[in-house]
Amino acid sequence: MTLDNVLARIDAEMPAATDRLLELLRIKSISTDPAFKAECDKAADWLVADLNSFGIAAEKRSTPGHPMVVGHVDGPEGADAPHVLFYGHYDVQPVDPLELWDNDPFAPAIEETANGPVIRGRGSSDDKGQLMTFVEACRAWKAEHGALPCKITFFFEGEEECGSPSLVPFMKENAAELTSDIALICDTGLFQSKTPAIITSLRGLLGEELTVKAANKDLHSGMFGGVSMNPIRVLSKALAGLHDETGRVTLPGFYDGVHELPAELAAQWKALNFDHKAFLGDVDLSEPAGEQGYTPLEMIWSRPTCEVNGILGGYTGEGFKTVLPAEASAKVSFRLVGDQDPLKIREAFRAYIESCLPVDCTVEFTGYGAAGGSNMSTDHPAFEQARLALSDEWPEAAAFAGCGGSIPISGHFKQIVGTNSMLIGFAKDDDQIHSPNEKYDVESFHKGIRSWARILEAMSRG
Amino acid sequence: MTLDNVLARIDAEMPAATDRLLELLRIKSISTDPAFKAECDKAADWLVADLNSFGIAAEKRSTPGHPMVVGHVDGPEGADAPHVLFYGHYDVQPVDPLELWDNDPFAPAIEETANGPVIRGRGSSDDKGQLMTFVEACRAWKAEHGALPCKITFFFEGEEECGSPSLVPFMKENAAELTSDIALICDTGLFQSKTPAIITSLRGLLGEELTVKAANKDLHSGMFGGVSMNPIRVLSKALAGLHDETGRVTLPGFYDGVHELPAELAAQWKALNFDHKAFLGDVDLSEPAGEQGYTPLEMIWSRPTCEVNGILGGYTGEGFKTVLPAEASAKVSFRLVGDQDPLKIREAFRAYIESCLPVDCTVEFTGYGAAGGSNMSTDHPAFEQARLALSDEWPEAAAFAGCGGSIPISGHFKQIVGTNSMLIGFAKDDDQIHSPNEKYDVESFHKGIRSWARILEAMSRG
Repeated sequence: MTLDNVLARIDAEMPAATDRLLELLRIKSISTDPAFKAECDKAADWLVADLNSFGIAAEKRSTPGHPMVVGHVDGPEGADAPHVLFYGHYDVQPVDPLELWDNDPFAPAIEETANGPVIRGRGSSDDKGQLMTFVEACRAWKAEHGALPCKITFFFEGEEECGSPSLVPFMKENAAELTSDIALICDTGLFQSKTPAIITSLRGLLGEELTVKAANKDLHSGMFGGVSMNPIRVLSKALAGLHDETGRVTLPGFYDGVHELPAELAAQWKALNFDHKAFLGDVDLSEPAGEQGYTPLEMIWSRPTCEVNGILGGYTGEGFKTVLPAEASAKVSFRLVGDQDPLKIREAFRAYIESCLPVDCTVEFTGYGAAGGSNMSTDHPAFEQARLALSDEWPEAAAFAGCGGSIPISGHFKQIVGTNSMLIGFAKDDDQIHSPNEKYDVESFHKGIRSWARILEAMSRG
Repeated sequence: MTLDNVLARIDAEMPAATDRLLELLRIKSISTDPAFKAECDKAADWLVADLNSFGIAAEKRSTPGHPMVVGHVDGPEGADAPHVLFYGHYDVQPVDPLELWDNDPFAPAIEETANGPVIRGRGSSDDKGQLMTFVEACRAWKAEHGALPCKITFFFEGEEECGSPSLVPFMKENAAELTSDIALICDTGLFQSKTPAIITSLRGLLGEELTVKAANKDLHSGMFGGVSMNPIRVLSKALAGLHDETGRVTLPGFYDGVHELPAELAAQWKALNFDHKAFLGDVDLSEPAGEQGYTPLEMIWSRPTCEVNGILGGYTGEGFKTVLPAEASAKVSFRLVGDQDPLKIREAFRAYIESCLPVDCTVEFTGYGAAGGSNMSTDHPAFEQARLALSDEWPEAAAFAGCGGSIPISGHFKQIVGTNSMLIGFAKDDDQIHSPNEKYDVESFHKGIRSWARILEAMSRG
């Protein structure tokens, strides 16, 4: 049988597949930090070479930022299989605080844990390990049958962790080449460790950096304390006013376009019996801290947020320094849902901050990505095909789920090339993505590869 | 004439005196950072050698922290001159942000400016330059007359910029040796560039570092945003609540022991015609930002403050990282006046912060120095002698003034060895102490040395 042979080959090839992933993980492709530009380039080259090695016509495509990788392979001759596009990203998050890693984040290794073996290292889960599940599934198909079951376009970017500045222009310039019947995106997680998920809604992301300035230099708090304004105080007060006592964001118009959850979806989510105590307990938290009146799954999947991701001002080294700093800065991000307009929210945020400034204070803003939330249309037959294929591979049936993260690419596929997206991934909640000691379960990697083999087969059958 | 000869020698020796100061400024004696321990030691050794070089019996005295330097020299035989102790500190502030310095902070140099030549470098004003004004005055006396006009004890510490942890124990253990008729302290400024000041009140200082913790690791804001508590938000909100809309500190009991200014002193201060617009204008500020209802001089000299001197949390590097950090920290200091009790205020601060913590958040505190404010008694005859001597040296008559800074040493002299202190210094408002590009006017250094020669002579006459 076609599929069984492929699955058997995947099982047999696991050691070689793991070695390939470790090789990719050793490349320090931190996209947000210009110091790692050459490493991002190296990761793109590695992917091109790897795709070429099993017959995919792939190449690196330059952008004003980090390069894209685009590859194409035809499906079986004369068959009626769909044309699928697969998207993943080869860039990774920064690794600080480095001292909290047990090992070098870029010296990945297989580690035995109480929950089975894991691949430890930055990017192992987000997104290199996930990306390679699909590549390995294709490699096995090709090796076993000399051809892929569907026509496939591979599309990898290297700026996902820094707001994807080159993505939209590139997609617009290459819209014809990136058009397919459906886009597969592997950058999400299992619903629970034995339950795969197909994501049907995503939150958008808006990022803002702000620097509040007062005096033209750092001042001595003995000489100036009491008579001059302290930018840390101004910034703290402004940030403190972003939420009310019930956890709601206070910016005017922030909730415009946020829809209450349809009853049917609310019931589906309720049936998932999300164990929020275990989810929070894993990181030593006990109580959902979000907006009052919503379930924990709703807080994560269907409610917008405002968070401070970083703050810095004054003397932060060892010991004490009685300085009144000239400036203080913060990085603030918003997760957006439904039809919230990122640009209107940026405007409201900036106007609010300006309104918090006392005399003699000024503020400078830098905007980062601004993408709204998105909801998938599950009408496309691929959704049901994938749901059944996933349910065959995993112990529990696959769920249609929401996702609190922001993967704007699905919105871009819809808007720029008119393609629906299907998001399927195999990350686990404890993968520590964006944190020290990131890992990817060997089970996620192995069953992930097998899942894609099954999904491609199901889609090729129509 | 005795004094005239000394003043003439001071004028002639200025190049050599300047070279000596530059040598001391090259030593990186940053006391708050353990990385510079050996440099602090080196500065103490330099001072011992310098005092020895003109016949002062001085030695380095070890403490659990950085060493003290203590030296003694007798006065003229049979004369009735007082025994004076001179205090200064050889440690300096950290130099960050280093990129804002025009030159290496520890490669001091003489620089011509629109306001005359300055000595540029970390510690040039605070306090190495000031300390050396007294040492050079003594050197000139000794060279000219073979003896000092008064019996003198030299007492230099190396931990003034990090809360003086070893000072009180050392003074207690060596109380007899450190007893004198009056303590002279040179760590303050001129009232205005042509008007010298004798300080009659000082603010105290209480320092607190706090770290708010939530989850046991950094979290991804897509996965956890909306359901988990963000320590930066908790910290910002707590800090924002420390002041009310009128600029008053909100901690319960904070103003206990703060006295309204006596009418006589208020009138004296008013007569000084403090140009707060120029003072603030120098650092690009325009409006006094302190407690409503007080004059700018009162805000600095007689009102207590609460300031955030540093804040840090989450990702603060280049670009963006959508992290919910595990912790966020701040350094907060209070300037205290009158009879405010630093320990009660520490307690109130910690209780307030604890009261701001939502479920799942904890806080850790580190206390730094805790010294109350102090008021000098101007009854001692040295005050009037010094006032007249200073008025002879400078274009404008000397003023009795307050000081917003914290020099707890004067309180320690009173409490531990029963000695009154007289604080006289020659720093200018634009010296940028604690900031990048710190400088000391050559005029401050020169007239400072001459001022001490005059003061010692006036005191020796009685």
